[in-house]
Amino acid sequence: MERIKCIVAYDGNGFAGYQAQPKERTVQGVIEQVLERMHCQPIRVHASGRTDATVHAVGQVLHFDTTVEMTADRWKYALNAQLPEDIWIVSVEKADSSFHARYDAVKKEYRYKVWNSKEKNIFGRHYHYHYPYAVSVEAMREAASYLVGTHDFTAFCSAKSDKEDKVRTIYEINILQKNEEIIFEFVGNGFLYNMVRIMMGTLLDVGQGRQKPVEVLGILEKKDRSLARKTAPGHGLYLWEVTYPSHRKDN
Amino acid sequence: MERIKCIVAYDGNGFAGYQAQPKERTVQGVIEQVLERMHCQPIRVHASGRTDATVHAVGQVLHFDTTVEMTADRWKYALNAQLPEDIWIVSVEKADSSFHARYDAVKKEYRYKVWNSKEKNIFGRHYHYHYPYAVSVEAMREAASYLVGTHDFTAFCSAKSDKEDKVRTIYEINILQKNEEIIFEFVGNGFLYNMVRIMMGTLLDVGQGRQKPVEVLGILEKKDRSLARKTAPGHGLYLWEVTYPSHRKDN
Repeated sequence: MERIKCIVAYDGNGFAGYQAQPKERTVQGVIEQVLERMHCQPIRVHASGRTDATVHAVGQVLHFDTTVEMTADRWKYALNAQLPEDIWIVSVEKADSSFHARYDAVKKEYRYKVWNSKEKNIFGRHYHYHYPYAVSVEAMREAASYLVGTHDFTAFCSAKSDKEDKVRTIYEINILQKNEEIIFEFVGNGFLYNMVRIMMGTLLDVGQGRQKPVEVLGILEKKDRSLARKTAPGHGLYLWEVTYPSHRKDN
Repeated sequence: MERIKCIVAYDGNGFAGYQAQPKERTVQGVIEQVLERMHCQPIRVHASGRTDATVHAVGQVLHFDTTVEMTADRWKYALNAQLPEDIWIVSVEKADSSFHARYDAVKKEYRYKVWNSKEKNIFGRHYHYHYPYAVSVEAMREAASYLVGTHDFTAFCSAKSDKEDKVRTIYEINILQKNEEIIFEFVGNGFLYNMVRIMMGTLLDVGQGRQKPVEVLGILEKKDRSLARKTAPGHGLYLWEVTYPSHRKDN
């Protein structure tokens, strides 16, 4: 029995999210279907975490156990040959039998892409959030600086979250502007349900001048979800990278 | 009665091409439907030329006549408010009553986008042609140099073309490589049916080393469609810009 670790990219638009659900097309469901075909029995896949409907991944990480003997390169080829056009296995490596994609993750990066122009970019419409209002990147950077650090993020978490502990650490938030595109990078030890999208809603509100940057501090302190602004749409969000302590096994 | 000239962008993936056809979703059909609603009568739209199913436009040009009185800015707003998410009116201006989007066009630019990597880019899969084989850009540039100029392009034209005169002038072909992306720019006085996509098939064949660059000369001279390679897919192709002699009327 070998444990296989994969880095996976997917286009979230065609999926009802990562997690398997009956009667819905999900990333987990599609991958497990391919593995079941290869193994003639169900194979359970474990990911670093769920992503919602329409949310993309560039570097989702997952693992599964197999008795099929193949090199890592061959695994990558075999999986990509059978997966549909909106999932792509970026890399495969053989992992230690104690490796766990979810429990071992020590750092995650999400990115959020905004198209900030009155003009639509129709070719990117499924891959960024079109926000037509003028925004101040400086104001958003100031607001973001208050979110960095270790905080109770209750105010920035969906009420649907089942996590008891809402304390997380954000290591950095970078906001990069390239012409009409604004890319937000969030790096932290973990993120609550909808947390990046709720922070995005608030940052854009600040950028547009509807809240002052410093008001973010009050929202954090009051721990009241109703104070943070609306959740930004899923199709602008990318699970970009998941980091683990280095304990890989060579092929 | 005023003549309105529009620059229009569209994502070709959702259309059975530009030209109106019964029972098919076409760019012309969708735009004429919006205009009919605004005018309470059918309005005919004239474009610089057709584009095929899945072919995109960044700068298609069309004109129509109207009795509705609005500023150019207001026209842009009104049309975009009613058009679906895969068509975008980039600009509107009022044109001289003698202006004709098709007959007055003096220059056209098409671009073709290739993703040249063994790794798929799933987010761009509807917007470039994924060509996984190693290619020589230098060889393609040499082959392209033989296509530039005034030639009979019979060998690079679909047999379905109904044009008698197959002589066209290509002013320039530029090939730009940015990491995995290769962009081909074709500028000419006009292009025959499938001409850019057939040239692309041949250029990629040369790039991969299956034909010598100089063989393109022989294909041109023999005027035999069967010698040029297969037609590259439509979803990598963009009608980029159409140029007219300057005779615009101010709003």
